[in-house]
Amino acid sequence: MNARITCPVLGTKVVSAEEAVAHIRPGDRVGMSGFTGAGYPKAVPRALADRVRAARARGEEFRIDLWTGASTAPDADGVLAEAHAIGRRLPYNSDPTLRREINSGEVEYLDVHLSHSAQHMWFGFYGNLDVAVVEVTAILPDGRLVPSSSVGNNKTWLDQADKVILEVNHWQPRELEGFHDVYYGTALPPYRQPIELTDPTQRIGDQYLRVDPRKVVAVVETHSPDRNAAFSPLDETSIKIAEHLVDFLQAEVAADRMPKELLPIQSGVGNVANAVLAGLSRSTFSGLAAFTEVLQDGMLDLLDDGTLDFASATSFGLSDAGVKRFMDNIADYKGKILLRTEEISNHPELIRRLGLICMNGMIEADIYGNVNSTHVMGSSIMNGIGGSGDFARNAYLNFFVSPSTAKGGAISAIVPMVSHVDHTEHDVMVIVTEQGLADLRGLSPRKRARAIIENAAHPDYRDALRDYVERAEAARPNALHTPHLLDEALSWHQRFLETGHM
Amino acid sequence: MNARITCPVLGTKVVSAEEAVAHIRPGDRVGMSGFTGAGYPKAVPRALADRVRAARARGEEFRIDLWTGASTAPDADGVLAEAHAIGRRLPYNSDPTLRREINSGEVEYLDVHLSHSAQHMWFGFYGNLDVAVVEVTAILPDGRLVPSSSVGNNKTWLDQADKVILEVNHWQPRELEGFHDVYYGTALPPYRQPIELTDPTQRIGDQYLRVDPRKVVAVVETHSPDRNAAFSPLDETSIKIAEHLVDFLQAEVAADRMPKELLPIQSGVGNVANAVLAGLSRSTFSGLAAFTEVLQDGMLDLLDDGTLDFASATSFGLSDAGVKRFMDNIADYKGKILLRTEEISNHPELIRRLGLICMNGMIEADIYGNVNSTHVMGSSIMNGIGGSGDFARNAYLNFFVSPSTAKGGAISAIVPMVSHVDHTEHDVMVIVTEQGLADLRGLSPRKRARAIIENAAHPDYRDALRDYVERAEAARPNALHTPHLLDEALSWHQRFLETGHM
Repeated sequence: MNARITCPVLGTKVVSAEEAVAHIRPGDRVGMSGFTGAGYPKAVPRALADRVRAARARGEEFRIDLWTGASTAPDADGVLAEAHAIGRRLPYNSDPTLRREINSGEVEYLDVHLSHSAQHMWFGFYGNLDVAVVEVTAILPDGRLVPSSSVGNNKTWLDQADKVILEVNHWQPRELEGFHDVYYGTALPPYRQPIELTDPTQRIGDQYLRVDPRKVVAVVETHSPDRNAAFSPLDETSIKIAEHLVDFLQAEVAADRMPKELLPIQSGVGNVANAVLAGLSRSTFSGLAAFTEVLQDGMLDLLDDGTLDFASATSFGLSDAGVKRFMDNIADYKGKILLRTEEISNHPELIRRLGLICMNGMIEADIYGNVNSTHVMGSSIMNGIGGSGDFARNAYLNFFVSPSTAKGGAISAIVPMVSHVDHTEHDVMVIVTEQGLADLRGLSPRKRARAIIENAAHPDYRDALRDYVERAEAARPNALHTPHLLDEALSWHQRFLETGHM
Repeated sequence: MNARITCPVLGTKVVSAEEAVAHIRPGDRVGMSGFTGAGYPKAVPRALADRVRAARARGEEFRIDLWTGASTAPDADGVLAEAHAIGRRLPYNSDPTLRREINSGEVEYLDVHLSHSAQHMWFGFYGNLDVAVVEVTAILPDGRLVPSSSVGNNKTWLDQADKVILEVNHWQPRELEGFHDVYYGTALPPYRQPIELTDPTQRIGDQYLRVDPRKVVAVVETHSPDRNAAFSPLDETSIKIAEHLVDFLQAEVAADRMPKELLPIQSGVGNVANAVLAGLSRSTFSGLAAFTEVLQDGMLDLLDDGTLDFASATSFGLSDAGVKRFMDNIADYKGKILLRTEEISNHPELIRRLGLICMNGMIEADIYGNVNSTHVMGSSIMNGIGGSGDFARNAYLNFFVSPSTAKGGAISAIVPMVSHVDHTEHDVMVIVTEQGLADLRGLSPRKRARAIIENAAHPDYRDALRDYVERAEAARPNALHTPHLLDEALSWHQRFLETGHM
């Protein structure tokens, strides 16, 4: 028995990944761990991909339904997509190979709110879960599981699956024990109770995941690092976006609409988000808390410099350097970080109660404040909505951020009408680009249009946007709530498809 | 002192409506009671309209910001709109005169989720509230207020306004005392606590509204009935929609995805909604509960015949006959009906916890499951989103219902792309028309398109919809997640504008 697997029952189930995947059948619904490149299984996906390739070489079709926490990594989504092993996938993906297969029509993709993914599974909307494949840090003598670098939907997959395959990853620091808070109070209606969390720092669950040992069909040992997303150095555009946003928060505090230590912050993933965190670090704010999905490098900076006192998340999303910093100082971070299930990190009840300040990226916004977070030119999926809908709808204050142009100026992030709506005009409060910030709160659609065009759109596109609004207003004088020219509303996207420029 | 106003302090403040409106100044933000034609002020709006007309005759501009619970009635929104007295309005309106003024660009309209309206006011997003005008049934000796036939945002308006005008309506039955549950536990973040309601029947608040008597500048007595919306007799289309929906619920129970007494139901307002309630009445269901916004005639039927044990709402929306039935049997209904604030009736926390079954009307849906509840041909507002977003997003199961065509077949309720999105593809579960029911749960966008076209679209439009999908799929073989032809997606609406037929 090794130091990571001290349960006498589960210790007898250690096998190779190749043996483990014999338990996964064609057509199975498989729930894997993994959230934003952390805590995904490292060995089983590759072994499964090999098995799928071998089956296909024999002329047998072999695809699975793959359910995860959110995005995973090349070692999980990537290898399975390359083997054409995925038939249906939910709830969020950022793997480029899998994205191509979704957009070519090979893979069915269900783009669901992260806060819905676990409960819709319990509700029976996706069918029965055949196998769970979950990475853990260690197995305790009584069979309880020390989670690894993400929690995501692991509790639900372990509870609901008929069979369980565990991966014990020796690369994950054993000291992760104590960094998790797994809430076991969820239930199906009509038996649901209030979730008694009123502060991001509060523990409401267990440090461990539970599994019925009789369901565990295999335990696989690995020694592989998480993907470790690299961040680009901060560019001028991101820094400007961050400055507008931080200035705005300071003005909100000055206007007495926010306590001076703000309200708990949620931050999306990516370079702009990291720039915003860096902007907070340079600001005068201190004593903040985060209640978010992903703990990025920028949050470690804020914890280190005292801007942030505490971070609640469901996953780490650290660079190589971030992982090293975290591991080198892991004892210091204990008590300042909790990883929870995504049904808690993204729960509407908690987001609204805590009154979060939510900052998320977008692909485009339109002049009336509808936001597209998922689709390129109306039809191709980029990644998915993730938790952005959970957060934006229930936020105290929400920001959608993006550079004002893409592809060297060929695409405007501000358009007459978005080609796909993920966040409606009813939900979007503040739009920020490097050009400035449009505060839409309390504005009618036509005033929003002015605010967005004059403050957030790139100057090269402002005249065309103003011209659209003026002509739309003139065209239908009795349809002036949200003036549109329906034969032209999506013409910018169509022009891009035809000419490569909006 | 009369029997309805037994508070010695507030009893001294009784004045005429004409005197009361002297407290309302041009530019004031005014919060009025009223939700779906119930409990709105009956005298002050008319007197204010007169005052505005007189001012305008003198060459003075006079408009107010008008905030309500939801729609009101000709006596409130109607008379004020006719006097051109409204500058900005939120959060929901169904008055035809006011709708015209919004669509002609005269009135700014903020179409916010009902669950957001009160809290955004506290957050300071709409500015300070100058005056509250609230109808009540009676004033108790200690100054507490017996609410009338709706609660809506009254608690917030009374708490937040600088000045308060009360209307005591003698037409409202004095026996309404005991039918209300006004929750006083709300707070601003970071001080919010869990709302400890786990069952629609539970009381969590007071029977009375509170007001600081020093803020009350006038008390006006009225004797006027609520608007009493009339319902059309059930037509064949509505009955078919109801049958599909009730059959589906029975199948869900049979499939063990729902308890046999279902989960609490929420039902939108209107003839289709009433038909659905009638369908439930004819079904084998019993022992149901409602957690909804409006208690319609159909709900009284269900309470009377034992289908429904209990109804929680924020307002009555009864016909003349319904009012009479309610008043004649008011003692029997006590204990079976509670009216709450709309921040509770529409609270995401409670909707999700209780696991509601939500049924709401729509203007149109597109083939991928996006729903338009608010706009006609992309630009003109109809009524507003109301609570449909609060309910749909957090529901256990949601239905969007509509006849498959409008205007004698000239408009298809199923279109390639909706001209405005209020409920995104991430939120919409089941679409029902008289043609049938499309269950979108667990389906990718392209499968949703098949389900919606083949089950919900009118046969006269199916070929054109199939043709659109096929050509969209062929046009961009690497954009097959949500295939669209962007230069054609809104052409059905444009064709309607140009030719009067889609």
